[in-house]
Amino acid sequence: MRRVAVVGVGISKFGYRPDVSLPELAWEAVKEALDDARLDAKDIEAYVVGNVGGWSSEPLPAVVVGEYCGLAPSSGIRVEAACASGSSAVRTAYHMVASGEADIVMAMGVEKMNESPTPTVVEFIGRAGNYFWEFENFGLTFPGYYALHATAYMNKYGATEADLCEVAVKNHYYGSLNPKAQFQKPITLEECLKSRYVAWPLKLYDSSPITDGSAAVILASEEVAKKITDTPVWIKAIGAANGTSNLSKREDFTGLEAARLAAQRAYRKAGIDPNEPVKYLDVAEVHDCFTIAEIMAYEDLGFAKRGEGYKLAREKQTYIGGVIPVNLSGGLKAKGHPIGATGVAMIAELTRQLRQEVERGRQAPIKKGMALAHNVGGTGHYAFVTILSL
Amino acid sequence: MRRVAVVGVGISKFGYRPDVSLPELAWEAVKEALDDARLDAKDIEAYVVGNVGGWSSEPLPAVVVGEYCGLAPSSGIRVEAACASGSSAVRTAYHMVASGEADIVMAMGVEKMNESPTPTVVEFIGRAGNYFWEFENFGLTFPGYYALHATAYMNKYGATEADLCEVAVKNHYYGSLNPKAQFQKPITLEECLKSRYVAWPLKLYDSSPITDGSAAVILASEEVAKKITDTPVWIKAIGAANGTSNLSKREDFTGLEAARLAAQRAYRKAGIDPNEPVKYLDVAEVHDCFTIAEIMAYEDLGFAKRGEGYKLAREKQTYIGGVIPVNLSGGLKAKGHPIGATGVAMIAELTRQLRQEVERGRQAPIKKGMALAHNVGGTGHYAFVTILSL
Repeated sequence: MRRVAVVGVGISKFGYRPDVSLPELAWEAVKEALDDARLDAKDIEAYVVGNVGGWSSEPLPAVVVGEYCGLAPSSGIRVEAACASGSSAVRTAYHMVASGEADIVMAMGVEKMNESPTPTVVEFIGRAGNYFWEFENFGLTFPGYYALHATAYMNKYGATEADLCEVAVKNHYYGSLNPKAQFQKPITLEECLKSRYVAWPLKLYDSSPITDGSAAVILASEEVAKKITDTPVWIKAIGAANGTSNLSKREDFTGLEAARLAAQRAYRKAGIDPNEPVKYLDVAEVHDCFTIAEIMAYEDLGFAKRGEGYKLAREKQTYIGGVIPVNLSGGLKAKGHPIGATGVAMIAELTRQLRQEVERGRQAPIKKGMALAHNVGGTGHYAFVTILSL
Repeated sequence: MRRVAVVGVGISKFGYRPDVSLPELAWEAVKEALDDARLDAKDIEAYVVGNVGGWSSEPLPAVVVGEYCGLAPSSGIRVEAACASGSSAVRTAYHMVASGEADIVMAMGVEKMNESPTPTVVEFIGRAGNYFWEFENFGLTFPGYYALHATAYMNKYGATEADLCEVAVKNHYYGSLNPKAQFQKPITLEECLKSRYVAWPLKLYDSSPITDGSAAVILASEEVAKKITDTPVWIKAIGAANGTSNLSKREDFTGLEAARLAAQRAYRKAGIDPNEPVKYLDVAEVHDCFTIAEIMAYEDLGFAKRGEGYKLAREKQTYIGGVIPVNLSGGLKAKGHPIGATGVAMIAELTRQLRQEVERGRQAPIKKGMALAHNVGGTGHYAFVTILSL
C-alpha cells in the first residue's frame, strides 16, 4: 500500500447558514484546503463528497458542488454512510491514492440540514435508524435511541446525569475557543443539568445541534506530499465496521459493537496496542452526537475499561493535561454536526492539531505524534476509526 | 497497483418486482455471485452498494442490504453517481483491492424504482439533471434531455428516426435471449416507428423502462483470484470523468464530453489505441437509456467517427458478426435500467461474455480477450468506462 498524506485541510463556519447555497458552503472549505496545500482546483485528480442529502431538492450534490468548485471534469462521486459519510469519503479518497490510481484526491463533506423539507430534521434523521420497524412502529428517533443507551449505561454502571453533562461542559468550553464552532459560549454544569429534557435522561445540552457546514481534506501520495509540503500528516490506518440496524439484535446497549471492531482493525493496522491506545495518541476527536456517545466511545476505543468511561468525564481526564484530550474542536456537541461533513472535519481538525496550529487554549501537546478520529453512522450501523500520524 | 480480478458475478431478474423487498432483491444477485465464486458471505471483507434511492422510506440501503445478506460486520457503504452509481461502486471496490486494503470486496447495485413515492419516476429522475434551473424552470426530464440530443444529432448528421429504432430492434432482439431481461420480446422496426411519442423524436420504444433489479460482482486480489478460480476476468482500467450539469455550458449536444474523457482515460491506462478501440475489444455494454444515447456512445467511445455512429446502427454493425457487438444483454433498453444496479450488471454481463458462458445466440465470439462497459449518470454529469480482460 502506498503511503498517503493529508496535505491540505479546510473547514467552513459551522452553524445556521441560510446565507449560502450548498455549493457555496462547500467552496468555503474547498478553498481553504486548496490554499492550505497551495494547490489549484485543477490539480485535484478526483474528489469524493460525503453527503446524506434529502434536505433540499438537489439530488446530485457531488455534481453541483464539484462543478461550482472548479473540480470537474475530474471524476467526483458521492458516498453515504449516514453520520459517518465524511469518514467514508476520506476512506474512498485514501484508497484511490493508496492504490496508485491518483496522486492528489480531495475528500469533502457538506450538508445543509436546515433546509430539511420534512416536518422536522429529527424525524428525517430518525429514518436513519431502523426505518420500517423501529421508526414506523415505535417512533424512535435519535434522541430516543441514545436515551436508551444512556439509561442502560447509567443503570449498569452507576453513571449520573451530571457525568453526562461533564462532557457537554468540556465540549462547549473548547468550542468557545474554536472560531468555526456553531456554539462559542461555555456552559456550566448547572446550566446543563437544568436544561429541558429531550428524551430522558438526555437534555438539550446533552444533544448535538442541527448544523450546516462543510469540510475538505486533500490527500496526496508520498512522492507528491514531500514535494508540496513540509508538514505532511499521514493516514496511518482506517478501521471500519458495520453493525446491526436492529436494536433487538444487540447484545447490550452500553457500547457500539461496530465501533469496537473498527477500533480493533485500526489499531492492528497502525501497530497500536489495543489495551493501551492512549500511550500512542496525543489527541482524539470522537462522535459525541449525544454526551453518552462520547462516554461509550471512551470505552469502545479502549481509553477506559468497560463501565469506567464516565469516570474519565467525571475526573476531567479528557481535557488537555488529562489521560487523553478529546474533542478539542468542541466536538459534534459544540462545533456542530453537519452529518456528511463531520468525518472530514475530524480529519481536518486533527491534522491541524498534529501540525500544532490550532487556536490558543485548545492545542493539544503533541509528543507522540498520533491522533485518532472516531465517527459513527446511524445507531452504530457504521463506524470508522482513523489514525493519523506525523 | 495490484491487479484485481472479477471472481464472481450475479444478476437478479430485472423488471417489476413487488414480490421482493429491497434486501431480498439484493440477495438474488449477492447469492448468485457468492455461488459463482464459491465463497461465503463471511469471506467478503468489505462491500460497496450503488444505490440512488429515494424510492422508499428506507434511507440507509447499504445497512439493511448488507445485514440481510450476511455481510455485516464487514464494512459497507453506499455510493451514488446517479445512473452511473453501479460503476462508481465497482470502482470504489476496485481501489480497495488494488490498494492492498482488502483481498475480497463485493460491489453491488440495487434499486426498486417502482416504489417511487413522488408523482412519477420520470419526475423524480428529472431532478437528477440540473434541478434548480432546468427542471424547475423548464420542466426538463430525461426523455426531454435526450430528445434534445436526438434532434441536434439528426439535424447535424442526417440520422433518421428509423436509425434510432434500429438500436431498439437490436437490443430487444438480444434481450429476448436473456432470461434476466425485463423485456423478452423482439420488436420490429415498424413497431418501434409506430410507437407513441414520449418526447419527439423519441418514442416509447426508444426509451429504457422503469426497473427493479440488482447485480453483484466480487473482486479479488491476484493472489486470491488464482487460488479460487480458473477463470479470472481482470479489471484492466477504469476511466472516469464528470461533465457540466448545465446544458447551456455544453459545446454541443451530439455527444457527451464526460464520456469521451472517460474513454480516453481508460484507453490510455489499458494500452488501447483510442483511434481503433474496436481492434482490441470483443464486446461492449453501453449506456442506452435512450436509443440516441447508444449512437452517441459509439462515437464517444471511438467505435465510429463523429457523425457516423448512426451508420453502425443502420448497417447492423453492432450485432454479433459486425464491427463490434454492443449490448448483447439487451442493454438498458430491453434488459432494464435499475439505476444503481446498471453499472454493476454491465460488469457481470461482460465477465460472463469473456468467460463464454452466456445464453446461445447472444454470446460474442471471444478472440481478443477484452470487453468494455460505458455507464453514464445524469445528462452526462458522470461517465465511467471500464475495460475488462482475460
